[in-house]
Amino acid sequence: MYSTATYRLYLLLSERRVPGLVEREAAEQPDRVGAVLGRQAEVAALADRLRGRFTNVLLVARGSSDNVARYAQYVLGARNGLRAALAAPSLTTRYGARLDLRDTLTIGISQSGTSPDVVGVVSEAARQGAPTVAITNAPGSALAAAAEHVVALEAGAEDAVAATKTYTCSLAAIALLSAALAGDAGAYGDLADVPDAMREVLAARLPSAALNRWVSARRGIVVGRGYEFATAHETALKLQELGGVIAQAHSAADVRHGPVGGLTGDVPVIVFAAPGALSDDLVQTCAALASRGPLTTIGALEAAHQHAGVAWRLPEVAEWVAPLVSVVAGQRLAIALAHTLGRDADQPPGLTKVTRTR
Amino acid sequence: MYSTATYRLYLLLSERRVPGLVEREAAEQPDRVGAVLGRQAEVAALADRLRGRFTNVLLVARGSSDNVARYAQYVLGARNGLRAALAAPSLTTRYGARLDLRDTLTIGISQSGTSPDVVGVVSEAARQGAPTVAITNAPGSALAAAAEHVVALEAGAEDAVAATKTYTCSLAAIALLSAALAGDAGAYGDLADVPDAMREVLAARLPSAALNRWVSARRGIVVGRGYEFATAHETALKLQELGGVIAQAHSAADVRHGPVGGLTGDVPVIVFAAPGALSDDLVQTCAALASRGPLTTIGALEAAHQHAGVAWRLPEVAEWVAPLVSVVAGQRLAIALAHTLGRDADQPPGLTKVTRTR
Repeated sequence: MYSTATYRLYLLLSERRVPGLVEREAAEQPDRVGAVLGRQAEVAALADRLRGRFTNVLLVARGSSDNVARYAQYVLGARNGLRAALAAPSLTTRYGARLDLRDTLTIGISQSGTSPDVVGVVSEAARQGAPTVAITNAPGSALAAAAEHVVALEAGAEDAVAATKTYTCSLAAIALLSAALAGDAGAYGDLADVPDAMREVLAARLPSAALNRWVSARRGIVVGRGYEFATAHETALKLQELGGVIAQAHSAADVRHGPVGGLTGDVPVIVFAAPGALSDDLVQTCAALASRGPLTTIGALEAAHQHAGVAWRLPEVAEWVAPLVSVVAGQRLAIALAHTLGRDADQPPGLTKVTRTR
Repeated sequence: MYSTATYRLYLLLSERRVPGLVEREAAEQPDRVGAVLGRQAEVAALADRLRGRFTNVLLVARGSSDNVARYAQYVLGARNGLRAALAAPSLTTRYGARLDLRDTLTIGISQSGTSPDVVGVVSEAARQGAPTVAITNAPGSALAAAAEHVVALEAGAEDAVAATKTYTCSLAAIALLSAALAGDAGAYGDLADVPDAMREVLAARLPSAALNRWVSARRGIVVGRGYEFATAHETALKLQELGGVIAQAHSAADVRHGPVGGLTGDVPVIVFAAPGALSDDLVQTCAALASRGPLTTIGALEAAHQHAGVAWRLPEVAEWVAPLVSVVAGQRLAIALAHTLGRDADQPPGLTKVTRTR
């Protein structure tokens, strides 16, 4: 598709390219996330109003926000002992199911706050008198109006079609809410490390060799587990939106059930590997994958990098906040893939910023 | 990759090929599913013992069984008004989360009954005194031992690596349990139509043109929504396991958020389209997708077929049981793709039948 010479030329020229919308918005993330994290007192007050009113959590979202929900499922489960489930909105909006949400905290996550199916489920929960929270960048939206409480992201306008800063600001809002509900003072120290770590990832030299196989194969696999399952999904979505490839996200646990069969030596694999409870699994997974195709590892787990053809070493932060940092690497790879393929990274073909599925 | 002539030659010769393991097991499905459906009284007795002991459902599974869980989420939600969530097993087995499962019916689904993470979550639920059910083809397994109740699939040995009959038998077990919990006599009539409809799909002429683009692109998208979301995931998994391609499953609701950007005219798309609550959405989705690439529609929704390059018309059954019938078409496409690519469909490279993730 692209000769090595053309590709190298691109890399040379790209250093001087004027950053587009999506790059500028991605570059705002450390400050924007820092601002969300500064609203500790506001979210603690919200947690006080919610405490005791629910036994479990329902997360309602679409697209990138669905990946925020995946992160929330692990954070609220592992750190708060809460059962958190991802909603199947069509049950409410299409099949007319009347699910009992009275003991449930329903959290709607939507950058634009306009997705009718997300609004529909939150409205139904509110109708039942259950506690509801909207996490949105649009405090005047239908979602904010439907929910009892709003956490406004205040991320500024996001004009690129692909979500970047609203994704990480939503992760930050979930992390703050988890810390506040747990009354865990140590958590704020973990979160305080995040903005500088994000800056480091933004400033790092992009390991462009990780993209070579994506350019030729136009397909690949992105792996994560636990907290980083969300990052695998979000990176796969960004690679698709921006790069126009087929990228499939998998849990490191599931990847040996099927997708390994698809690896034929020309299919690239990215593994997000943060040190923590899953370190051993991740190293084993990387060892198994390395023998089957070109492997890129992203994270601070050094033992995983040993198996990789390309290793992107990230600054180490606490395992549970790693997704706020590592996804910035995924975003950068996806943006670079779009540029390499000559695609418009700000306005990818066939996509609209706001979707209105019911 | 393969010339049209070679491909036509394969199609000619394949009519005379001796069926392999996976084809023989797939062909058993109408009888095996019929046998599960015949155990209405046994499952009704189980439902009586469970009734009143739970307010919500947790589904624990991996691989193909995770797609059974996706089906269960919609069936139990839409037909029983029950909130059913898919578990994140590593929360229990890796992060040590102590989730309160006392009001929850925990259903473990595993063909082999040996997956340690599925067994781990079911054991934890049983330890809390909560009702638990194992759906498994191995009544002597660790999963069966851990659960209070067992629905044995009695599907016979499944020796091919890719699950076929244990998948549809598990769907049948979930459907029976839903009907019994709802006390819905009409549901049994819907289910009675399934075996003959499966036979019809097994006997139909395979629309081999649906495979052309998969052979050359080695990647594609499989779409479903509602009940058929499970079929999209299971078909994508089968295409990967058997065909070694990268196949990505999407909800018809989500597909416009990102993956459409990846469709460049050479990326094949399969949409499962059953008539029902989502008919309008599906027709709109097919219309949007048709303009971007080669589209295959599978199902009984005639209005969706109008937008397709290749239409596989299936016998109509009630919407909620359509996944038992339509997945047989997906299985057949995946098996044919393996044969076309010269891959071993019974023992795909790099895969093992039983996975032991923790």
